[in-house]
Amino acid sequence: MNTPLTPTLDRVAGPADLRSMNLGELSTLARELRQEVISVVSETGGHLGSSLGVVELTVALHAVFNTPFDKLVWDVSHQCYPHKILTGRRDRMHTLRQGGGLAGFCKRTESEFDPFGAGHSSTSISAALGFAVGRDMGLPTGDSIAVIGDGSISAGMAYEALNNAGHENRRLFVILNDNEMSIAPPVGAMSKYLSGLYADTPLGKLKDMAEDFEAALPGPIREGARRARQLVTGFPGGGTLFEELGFDYIGPIDGHDMSQLMAVMRAARARAAGPVLIHVCTVKGKGYRPAETAADKYHGVSKFDVVSGAQKKSKGNAPSYTSVFGQTLTDEAARESRVVAVTAAMPSGTGLNIMQDRFPARVFDVGIAEQHAVTFAGGMAASGLKPFCAIYSTFLQRGYDQLVHDVVLQKLPVRFAIDRAGLVGADGSTHAGAFDLSYLCCLPGLTVMAAGDEAELKHMVATAAAYDEGPIAFRYPRGEGLGVEMPERGEVLEIGKGRILREGSQVALLSLGAPLGDALKAAEALEARGISVTVADARFAKPMDTDLIAQLVAHHAALITIEHGSEGGFGAQVLHWLARTGRLDKGLAVRTMTLPDTFIEQASPAAMYAEAKLTADDIADTALSALGVAPAQFGTARA
Amino acid sequence: MNTPLTPTLDRVAGPADLRSMNLGELSTLARELRQEVISVVSETGGHLGSSLGVVELTVALHAVFNTPFDKLVWDVSHQCYPHKILTGRRDRMHTLRQGGGLAGFCKRTESEFDPFGAGHSSTSISAALGFAVGRDMGLPTGDSIAVIGDGSISAGMAYEALNNAGHENRRLFVILNDNEMSIAPPVGAMSKYLSGLYADTPLGKLKDMAEDFEAALPGPIREGARRARQLVTGFPGGGTLFEELGFDYIGPIDGHDMSQLMAVMRAARARAAGPVLIHVCTVKGKGYRPAETAADKYHGVSKFDVVSGAQKKSKGNAPSYTSVFGQTLTDEAARESRVVAVTAAMPSGTGLNIMQDRFPARVFDVGIAEQHAVTFAGGMAASGLKPFCAIYSTFLQRGYDQLVHDVVLQKLPVRFAIDRAGLVGADGSTHAGAFDLSYLCCLPGLTVMAAGDEAELKHMVATAAAYDEGPIAFRYPRGEGLGVEMPERGEVLEIGKGRILREGSQVALLSLGAPLGDALKAAEALEARGISVTVADARFAKPMDTDLIAQLVAHHAALITIEHGSEGGFGAQVLHWLARTGRLDKGLAVRTMTLPDTFIEQASPAAMYAEAKLTADDIADTALSALGVAPAQFGTARA
Repeated sequence: MNTPLTPTLDRVAGPADLRSMNLGELSTLARELRQEVISVVSETGGHLGSSLGVVELTVALHAVFNTPFDKLVWDVSHQCYPHKILTGRRDRMHTLRQGGGLAGFCKRTESEFDPFGAGHSSTSISAALGFAVGRDMGLPTGDSIAVIGDGSISAGMAYEALNNAGHENRRLFVILNDNEMSIAPPVGAMSKYLSGLYADTPLGKLKDMAEDFEAALPGPIREGARRARQLVTGFPGGGTLFEELGFDYIGPIDGHDMSQLMAVMRAARARAAGPVLIHVCTVKGKGYRPAETAADKYHGVSKFDVVSGAQKKSKGNAPSYTSVFGQTLTDEAARESRVVAVTAAMPSGTGLNIMQDRFPARVFDVGIAEQHAVTFAGGMAASGLKPFCAIYSTFLQRGYDQLVHDVVLQKLPVRFAIDRAGLVGADGSTHAGAFDLSYLCCLPGLTVMAAGDEAELKHMVATAAAYDEGPIAFRYPRGEGLGVEMPERGEVLEIGKGRILREGSQVALLSLGAPLGDALKAAEALEARGISVTVADARFAKPMDTDLIAQLVAHHAALITIEHGSEGGFGAQVLHWLARTGRLDKGLAVRTMTLPDTFIEQASPAAMYAEAKLTADDIADTALSALGVAPAQFGTARA
Repeated sequence: MNTPLTPTLDRVAGPADLRSMNLGELSTLARELRQEVISVVSETGGHLGSSLGVVELTVALHAVFNTPFDKLVWDVSHQCYPHKILTGRRDRMHTLRQGGGLAGFCKRTESEFDPFGAGHSSTSISAALGFAVGRDMGLPTGDSIAVIGDGSISAGMAYEALNNAGHENRRLFVILNDNEMSIAPPVGAMSKYLSGLYADTPLGKLKDMAEDFEAALPGPIREGARRARQLVTGFPGGGTLFEELGFDYIGPIDGHDMSQLMAVMRAARARAAGPVLIHVCTVKGKGYRPAETAADKYHGVSKFDVVSGAQKKSKGNAPSYTSVFGQTLTDEAARESRVVAVTAAMPSGTGLNIMQDRFPARVFDVGIAEQHAVTFAGGMAASGLKPFCAIYSTFLQRGYDQLVHDVVLQKLPVRFAIDRAGLVGADGSTHAGAFDLSYLCCLPGLTVMAAGDEAELKHMVATAAAYDEGPIAFRYPRGEGLGVEMPERGEVLEIGKGRILREGSQVALLSLGAPLGDALKAAEALEARGISVTVADARFAKPMDTDLIAQLVAHHAALITIEHGSEGGFGAQVLHWLARTGRLDKGLAVRTMTLPDTFIEQASPAAMYAEAKLTADDIADTALSALGVAPAQFGTARA
């Protein structure tokens, strides 16, 4: 084990210990903390690059502000590893993102130092403003600090929050963690100069001084200084947006220079009356060469070798659903020039990078802007294009009104490719794609499919590409497919028709999407017990294949629906129909297997589904129970 | 009838007829069009003020742009009445917002001149950009024009769209319809001067000229000109946000001066290469004194007398749910200082104006910003406050991810007051509160209530105020209560417990929220037929009162759930539980009455519920059918 020596860090039981340290000690602490983060993440995997970028910032914030009385809110919070190490969780860092371990994000239930959890982006300013109101109304809470990245602050929600915070004019700190650029020397020089002045200068004048200083610089250096200001907002004027929204703007400062950070934070804390934005430039992956030099700055990594930086990627047996989607859509785009695609800042996460490589002008990355993404796709559909809007299930929640009001209500043929449907593993409950079936199946005229395996996904992409009659969505899980044989080309499915994979006579398993493999396994187990099982793949949650369901209930003693989604989705639609058509009147042993009515914490997907009681064994048990046969026969298979 | 003489308007069959008119004719047309709008709305009611504000703008846009080949997208689109009159719908304007008549908003199915419908705000730029992409990819569509108000453009979604449109750098017109200020003479003078120059000046120089001109003006006049620019963005620099986002900015111009409008639109159309923002100042209610002088500018009016401006408000018998909410919350706020409230630009629509009058510092109007509103409330809850977040059902869709991720996942005690749940009448399908039960009941740990009458709403406000254990929501319909006796003070309800209002033995009607009155009526009708009916008010959609449901199914031959919401909501939860507990195995005549799986167009709420088959008669019919008795006995009661 490459455990670094960390004598200074070892003295830190909590942030209070930082407040008596001098600048040299804090710098040493930051150095050790960085090594600790690298060491920990090399063993656990996780969000390395963003955490390395905020090591000094984390130290400075906890040294200057009185956490946890002061409320430090990390946006997205994948950059929280140094924060967790400093706030009493060091000894559990080896459990990061694992079942029963520390979450990969901030979490209120985990620590009083996490006043507001996250996972999705651009929420921190809104939350921090809420704490500021509480403080101003006399509740026992101190200062309120949001730390937000340059990507996150560009989302509409952050704009709404800045706008409102400026209007409220309450004391509030927004730290803009800007890691899109490296700190060029001239900028560092200017920042250093400024930070020396901060200590004795009234805050209101800081920005004027910055501008004067900037103007006095020689041309090329001035240009560098300007660029640093522009890099988020694109505002040549420098910080204009923030200032005009009512914030005092300070920056840019070098986020890896502890003396600058401490001086600026102390000055800001001492003097701020209203909202202050401190623009801090950091380097993603800072201090770990393999991360700094990698294109993605080691944003999310698996376990790795600290010396070489080599990641221990497990070699998959089957292609990921994401890559199947990306490749299939690219094939469809090659055949049909009207196919276009939209992503909200996730080209590689969604697999659209594959299409982007081949048809760059037909893939639109709109940034973290799901609301716009959906309606923009609606406009493209109205113009006659065939837009695919690829958004994870959990993030599509951000574009829900647009999906309802702009797309579905108008029957526009937007294709929603919903990746990460169901439980997602290490990212935990904030990223679970649990609710899409419930919030989509209720919408009139929306077609909703779910892929039972990777070949099915290929068919569904083809089906969506061919379908021009209205909006259509297809969901598929995170991770690898089942390893099934892949067709040369996806086939266009008949809308609203399921398929029977296995015919039996006693119990019918009606699976929607990803549970299909487990349903087939459950059928094997049941047959071994002498029970005759039909397995059907619904393919469509909406419109339902009512012929198929009618046939299943007519010829089986029990019907089990299975989906990787919350109640109120596919199974609910089946129940509504059965009730409406009087099929429940005379008795029907029907069971709807869904995600349970709880949030499930991070673990391996398999462990999460076990906790959700959605394994093959659970399916078999449910079938037995519905048939009135004692269950528990499958317990051994679970070990 | 005060039918105005409209010789010029009478010559207009469609926008093409405007393109051969000279400036004088267009001005005359605008004058007549304004009178026509006033005349029509005096008979129908509707959004008068905003439509009067854009009369000249509407004429100019249709005269300059080649609609419908060019795509004109009205944001929100309540200002579309002049547009509808000019685009072939004049003879149906008397049916506005009525059943079977013209919609109050733009609607794709109504006219080819409505390329993208709306109702919710801030969607137009996204949609228009979509059309621009279609055009640039060779589809047969022309220019793309979004017309958006100053309130709408401040929402996060519009910011996302501007941001992306600037990046895309496609030819696109955004007309900022700024009606927050009246056009002061100096501004008009400057704009007039500028518009004279536009015709011969390359577009790129327009803004420089405007600035030069502005700088040369004498102090007080210059101040007026500056204010005109600042009024939306608050940017002293003038239009900076738009320019820095990559738009050419032109304006402000006088939106009631036809010559300015025509000159600027023609110049812009002739020369634009990338995105252009034209800042047009208009007066809401322009040209109709009672509207111009009213505080709300006759935003939404009932039928009125044209001469006096007096609106024919029907005098209600019972207080509206909105006012009961507002008054009750104010009472709770008087008792408990930690009660605060949040609205997204709807203080009077939500009834929070009542609390605002008494406790102005505890009501937060965050603007059109539902995303921020919800998470801001989450932050306040985390600080120890008791926030009520009052958002219409249809608009809460805009804050769905924030509700899931920031509030429910963290079990924060935010109180969601969900007004306009169910069908809403004249505003039609865009504003229907149809889906909240489906998108809320699936969320773990969220308590969901629905008020059966106005006294129940009072109890639910009290219950929510008292409940600190987690998030809680309560929904209630648009309009008046039932006229029930009101308690002095709301009582705190036991969480998850319903109540039985009437005991019988054959069929159980389990109503959630607003259908309660109809359920009681249905029970009367059924009893008259000799059928013994239990009526229960679930009160809680979540957690369900499973004791109550178990009792109902144990002692009745049939169970009917009734809700004013889509499938996947309360009834679905009941069905899931019945299935899970094996209560369907032996036979149970259960029916779940929900909104149908269609969008229901505007009409009176009663007519809409009749179309939805959710009247008292429908309930009685459903009960009979479930009992195996022939229905249709209640047909006569329907007339």
